[in-house]
Amino acid sequence: MAATRIDGKQAAEDVLATVRAAAADLEARRGVKPGLAVVLVGEDPASQVYVGSKGRMAGECGFHSVTHRLPADVAQDELLALIDRLNADPAIHGILQQLPLPEGLDADAVVGRIHPDKDVDGLTVVNAGRLASGLPAEAFVPCTPAGCMVLLRRALGADLSGRRAVVVGRSNLVGKPMAQLLLLANATVTVAHSRTRDLPALCREADILVAAIGRPQALGADCVKPGGVVIDVGINRIDAPERGEGKTRLVGDVAYEPAAAVAAAITPVPGGVGPMTIAMLMANTVTAACRAAGETPPTF
Amino acid sequence: MAATRIDGKQAAEDVLATVRAAAADLEARRGVKPGLAVVLVGEDPASQVYVGSKGRMAGECGFHSVTHRLPADVAQDELLALIDRLNADPAIHGILQQLPLPEGLDADAVVGRIHPDKDVDGLTVVNAGRLASGLPAEAFVPCTPAGCMVLLRRALGADLSGRRAVVVGRSNLVGKPMAQLLLLANATVTVAHSRTRDLPALCREADILVAAIGRPQALGADCVKPGGVVIDVGINRIDAPERGEGKTRLVGDVAYEPAAAVAAAITPVPGGVGPMTIAMLMANTVTAACRAAGETPPTF
Repeated sequence: MAATRIDGKQAAEDVLATVRAAAADLEARRGVKPGLAVVLVGEDPASQVYVGSKGRMAGECGFHSVTHRLPADVAQDELLALIDRLNADPAIHGILQQLPLPEGLDADAVVGRIHPDKDVDGLTVVNAGRLASGLPAEAFVPCTPAGCMVLLRRALGADLSGRRAVVVGRSNLVGKPMAQLLLLANATVTVAHSRTRDLPALCREADILVAAIGRPQALGADCVKPGGVVIDVGINRIDAPERGEGKTRLVGDVAYEPAAAVAAAITPVPGGVGPMTIAMLMANTVTAACRAAGETPPTF
Repeated sequence: MAATRIDGKQAAEDVLATVRAAAADLEARRGVKPGLAVVLVGEDPASQVYVGSKGRMAGECGFHSVTHRLPADVAQDELLALIDRLNADPAIHGILQQLPLPEGLDADAVVGRIHPDKDVDGLTVVNAGRLASGLPAEAFVPCTPAGCMVLLRRALGADLSGRRAVVVGRSNLVGKPMAQLLLLANATVTVAHSRTRDLPALCREADILVAAIGRPQALGADCVKPGGVVIDVGINRIDAPERGEGKTRLVGDVAYEPAAAVAAAITPVPGGVGPMTIAMLMANTVTAACRAAGETPPTF
């Protein structure tokens, strides 16, 4: 039997519907419009596309949305001063510094300057600490692992007691916060990585396998437990000569077809985790606005 | 073949020798004496004993040591004001709020008030975030898991690449930071807990088993991989009628004798992890003093 294809587009639409309703409610009852500020430094084409999408989606959610575009040669102090102004601005509830920054700018210092309660990307040390200390109601969780958890809850429910989860990858952005979230949901969690011995055997123990290594189709069917759930975080562009000369296509960290023959459910690439990331940014922003207004945020 | 008994008393003495040498060096070269302030609220007899030991050992390490004793009915604001004064005092490099606090006082608020760079117990959200973000050179790590890592390094070396570690217990004080430290040392790390299914089978996969559940002798030989290393964090007092009426003795979370028949190395209780905890408090304090002076701290 083929695996269920976990539909990230549909899940993202559902999240965004909740966001829009919560934003409308907050504005109607409290006169507060969630405010998202995106800061873009330099001319990186991919970053321009991402920032454009985020601004557009913020508008569609009914947010107050501003984008600050600074030249690539902006001084570090000037960028920090902008962050300080956004921190102090009551109309702004979420601040997102688009990364990477041009050479010469210190990304850790810039991200670290964002007030933790406006850090809707969940990248500050304080938010990592809130999550690690089991305080998700105070934390902002990075958008990609937060989105993976929404997909898992739809597939398996909120309580993962008794289930084994294996997270492959230990980045601060995905692997480590993902492990914390799975642990908070009562899964028994293993973090594997490049130094892990016999990775396929370990992965085959996983009722829940999260692949976040950034290598195209690195995990095959031998890494999937029969009946397991596979969440593929990877988004890798590879050559696709079968589509014509010079053509490319997107694949995940998991070899989809072979894995889908073994798993019970699996996220596709594209259309799985990808659409969730930007949806969760909107979710974090309306959550920030609710918290600032002393209102209970919606659940996602 | 019986397991090697990992000698925590000896390891603690070695740590303390390094602390004393670093403190003497800092004073000789920079005129700085590491300063540790311990805050005790109320009359809890066990806390009195712990605070006495910490002050005595700080003195033996050549530290400037002060103990603030406040009545059980002290106001929250007064306690916070004391923390603020200690935060601002340049002669104090480490602040330790002895827990538990009497009823009516908010321990999270008090601990959270300690400046992260003086938080030698490693209990603040910021230090949890530094550790979770892979910044151990900025973090203060809670003393018990830090001590477990010293014992593991002595048994297995600093790089745990390729080894499977299972941490049983997910507390903020021990289990979670222990998992982060093992991951930083390149182990493949699983966190197990009360909701884990078939715990013995999982534990038998562990080249390194860390027991931190607080139940006397809960893990038996069926939880130990032949040739594995066992770190027993538990300190539980049980009745010992064989020693006479009303007598008690201390045991760990692991049944020592049966586990020692299977493991390659194991920490005893008492005399294993226990002596490391207070030694690592001294290590964290001299580290705080070195950092404040812009000096490189010793390695432990």
